[in-house]
Amino acid sequence: MTEIIAPTHPFDSAIDLTPAEDGVFAGHTSAAFANMVGPFGGITAATLLRAVQQHPDRLGDPLSLTVNYAGPVAEGAFEITARATRTNRTTQHWSLELTQAGVLTTTATAVFGIRRETWESTESEMPRVPAPDAVEPSPFPEFIAWARNYDMRFVEGAVPNEDSGENPDSTSTLWVRPTPARSLDYPALAALADVFFPRVFLRRGRYMPAGTVSLTVYFHGNPEALATQADEPLLGTARTGRFGNGYFDQSAELWGRDGALLATSHQLVYFKD
Amino acid sequence: MTEIIAPTHPFDSAIDLTPAEDGVFAGHTSAAFANMVGPFGGITAATLLRAVQQHPDRLGDPLSLTVNYAGPVAEGAFEITARATRTNRTTQHWSLELTQAGVLTTTATAVFGIRRETWESTESEMPRVPAPDAVEPSPFPEFIAWARNYDMRFVEGAVPNEDSGENPDSTSTLWVRPTPARSLDYPALAALADVFFPRVFLRRGRYMPAGTVSLTVYFHGNPEALATQADEPLLGTARTGRFGNGYFDQSAELWGRDGALLATSHQLVYFKD
Repeated sequence: MTEIIAPTHPFDSAIDLTPAEDGVFAGHTSAAFANMVGPFGGITAATLLRAVQQHPDRLGDPLSLTVNYAGPVAEGAFEITARATRTNRTTQHWSLELTQAGVLTTTATAVFGIRRETWESTESEMPRVPAPDAVEPSPFPEFIAWARNYDMRFVEGAVPNEDSGENPDSTSTLWVRPTPARSLDYPALAALADVFFPRVFLRRGRYMPAGTVSLTVYFHGNPEALATQADEPLLGTARTGRFGNGYFDQSAELWGRDGALLATSHQLVYFKD
Repeated sequence: MTEIIAPTHPFDSAIDLTPAEDGVFAGHTSAAFANMVGPFGGITAATLLRAVQQHPDRLGDPLSLTVNYAGPVAEGAFEITARATRTNRTTQHWSLELTQAGVLTTTATAVFGIRRETWESTESEMPRVPAPDAVEPSPFPEFIAWARNYDMRFVEGAVPNEDSGENPDSTSTLWVRPTPARSLDYPALAALADVFFPRVFLRRGRYMPAGTVSLTVYFHGNPEALATQADEPLLGTARTGRFGNGYFDQSAELWGRDGALLATSHQLVYFKD
């Protein structure tokens, strides 16, 4: 009998953690998810969420996650410390820190909880766009490693190139799907919440130093809603409210093909023009 | 010679903290800012921000704040512990905990920083509404103590009463001004970010148990932009993207009369219908 071992998906390799002592997890950066400086912020967010999921005291599923990118994560090993700060009947609050050789690079808080059936209503409207197959993939520049893990098909607001001028609107809308394909779960959704390149690139029509300072993700989809998506593309849309004084906000929505609003996310981004 | 001592504004009394040992501040809940269960979430957010502002190591001004309401704050004394987790050249990251007799009720993270002049653009549009004087004040129900600290003039989406039916839209837009008048500063702005009643009340046309789980505020206004507002009313607008499984998100903007977008905020709210 031949045992068939499926190769680990690169995303799962990147967020893989080894539980050490109580609440401490050992991880390692993944070259496949490198950004220009340090790892893709989305993979750091996913890894922090994964730490809570793996914690033996964990209650329920992710409701919200805030990640503060305090300093650059260097290539190599890191440690995540996850601490349940308060456990209620149906919700649980977590504080997390990511360190490298004792130096803090990232802090986070997360709320997990048990969802129940209630009245529901999606008030935001899913953008009306062509089906994913009707949109051409538009690759990121080759030097951004992490983006090669996603098939991105921009309906509007693609990554600027040398011929792009300024754009009056900061909105990008795209179909996005992990490549190779992978079923949707909460860590994947957390990473996708950060898949939108900095809006200032789009407005100014060029690259410049920019990095997320703080990212918040609200998880609207329950586990069934996520499972329903399987490995289908999600529709993402992101825009900025205000740029100024070296910072801007960026808000995003992630929709399933079935019209389910799976996550909303917000971030504050540093830029240097 | 008679010394004239101005009475302390109730907001300043409510957020008043006494520095104890390193990074620990002693405070006390204020009856004037009580909500149905525990204090108004906005006053807790403002008090946490105030702790960082008072910390001798503090660098710059608030850029973002996330507050996780883990458990109810009881009437009485509390302690805030503020810890600078990382200090960079122009930004500083903070982790905070609020406890009562050793029991954790609230966690928070904050990013402070030094702003500089850059390209700027406000892409969100300020709602077009009548001037504050042309809108009637619409008081909150008398039993919500904290709301008596604000003059609120709803342009749309006022607090529902017995005759309100369901509303197809979750948007509230209002002029809001502290009463008595008080100059705008960052703690005041943090509190105003939570001044919007739970959007589910508006959609369902009635009250029900609801409470903020996690609140994030991005501060777009620099100190000069805040000072310019003096004690003038701000225009606030808030709406929800999705309600379901006992939770909903709520996003808000706070605008100056001069058209400055001063803060954007997002929260995840628990509800029981």
